Amino acid sequence: MSKIKLSEIATEPPKKFEKDEIKKAKEDILKDLNELQNLLYASHEHSLLVVLQGMDASGKDGTIRDVFGALNPQGVNVQSFKVPTKEEFDHDFLWRIHQHTPAKGMIQVFNRSHYEDVLQLNHPEEKIMKARFKAINNFEQLLAEHNNTTILKFYLHVSHEEQVKRLTERTKNPEKMWKYNPEDFEKSEKYGKFQKLYEDVFEECNEIPWTIVPADDNWYKEYLVAKICRDALKDMNMKYPTLKAVASES
Amino acid sequence: MSKIKLSEIATEPPKKFEKDEIKKAKEDILKDLNELQNLLYASHEHSLLVVLQGMDASGKDGTIRDVFGALNPQGVNVQSFKVPTKEEFDHDFLWRIHQHTPAKGMIQVFNRSHYEDVLQLNHPEEKIMKARFKAINNFEQLLAEHNNTTILKFYLHVSHEEQVKRLTERTKNPEKMWKYNPEDFEKSEKYGKFQKLYEDVFEECNEIPWTIVPADDNWYKEYLVAKICRDALKDMNMKYPTLKAVASES
Repeated sequence: MSKIKLSEIATEPPKKFEKDEIKKAKEDILKDLNELQNLLYASHEHSLLVVLQGMDASGKDGTIRDVFGALNPQGVNVQSFKVPTKEEFDHDFLWRIHQHTPAKGMIQVFNRSHYEDVLQLNHPEEKIMKARFKAINNFEQLLAEHNNTTILKFYLHVSHEEQVKRLTERTKNPEKMWKYNPEDFEKSEKYGKFQKLYEDVFEECNEIPWTIVPADDNWYKEYLVAKICRDALKDMNMKYPTLKAVASES
Repeated sequence: MSKIKLSEIATEPPKKFEKDEIKKAKEDILKDLNELQNLLYASHEHSLLVVLQGMDASGKDGTIRDVFGALNPQGVNVQSFKVPTKEEFDHDFLWRIHQHTPAKGMIQVFNRSHYEDVLQLNHPEEKIMKARFKAINNFEQLLAEHNNTTILKFYLHVSHEEQVKRLTERTKNPEKMWKYNPEDFEKSEKYGKFQKLYEDVFEECNEIPWTIVPADDNWYKEYLVAKICRDALKDMNMKYPTLKAVASES
């Protein structure tokens, strides 16, 4: 497979999709998702890990609110990974991540993730980067093989223009100002460099594949993430435990 | 390398070692160990993970008390791994282990460890066992490569006769009765089967090597564990941070 070039991948929905139809389809998917989540929780054999990555203002928070907010919070945990604390920094980079991997029956959403450690502009030398990619692959394999965890990795792909528009909105809309960070615009100028880092990640850590989600339009982004989660849960072929099975366990 | 046969390895100290001399040597080693621990804590770049495995009554608790009990408890943590809790069991088998890996500057002692999951008589099928061995190797590599952790793995090698003697002592000595478990004698009858499981572990998980410690005599066992820990810390070539370096960091 040749290396993915993000600049060649659309950030808008494919033309055939029509906003109102997709919004309606999403509502149906969320109903399925709700039922499947209950089944995941009840059957208690699988778990789902949703990794959300994307540049600033790519819509990670909105995805969490509008997709996973529709589910029973008893079965969903969200963990945001910010700058590591001193204690976290004193351990290997996967230490803080591993603590939040999903228990059987649960959906865990990562708002940013272990991938932050291979997405730094001032990244360490090649040898260390390669070792981190390998460690990440091993880690994801551990979860998949030894705890029946399905891992869905989403890159929310927003155009530079849309990113700048959203960041500017943060400086003007009182309800969004709390999200404003003076560094955001500096980082936005390095959009191309971050894209390159992501392209490396897609190449090196694709044993469990990434989905690149066109994210300029929220309605399409939410639809696609919800749909992929729904399909993944469906593929688990779960069954409600019967009364008999419950009785024999106790 | 041909497979290790535990039945061919002595459980007594080599003849050239004399008890009184060794006890005196151990005292000197513990002094070194104390100084090196302080240096580990102060320099804050490395960490040490000591994995203690061995059959029931092989002397794990005693090793912890008599070797690591001599150190500053601020820099040493001990974690015992017993039967997994329900929450632990709902995650991959390394989840509970990873939480207790040492922070930089620290010595962490595991009283039993992740190896318990490949040392069960009713073990899962070969394919799953192989996957666990691989996951363990990857996990240890993660700690070594990504947090500067030196891992020392000790198998306390006690003879079946000595084990039975110690278990019997537990039924008679009021200070040891709390350790008695009716299952101990049943498990002791399967000494040979457990040895086979350990031999598989030594073969499959030797990227970070094991030390087989003759453990019929406590004085030799303690000496050897202390010595190997001392030597490992010495090999880290640590230096106290100077005043200048401290100032420039703050």
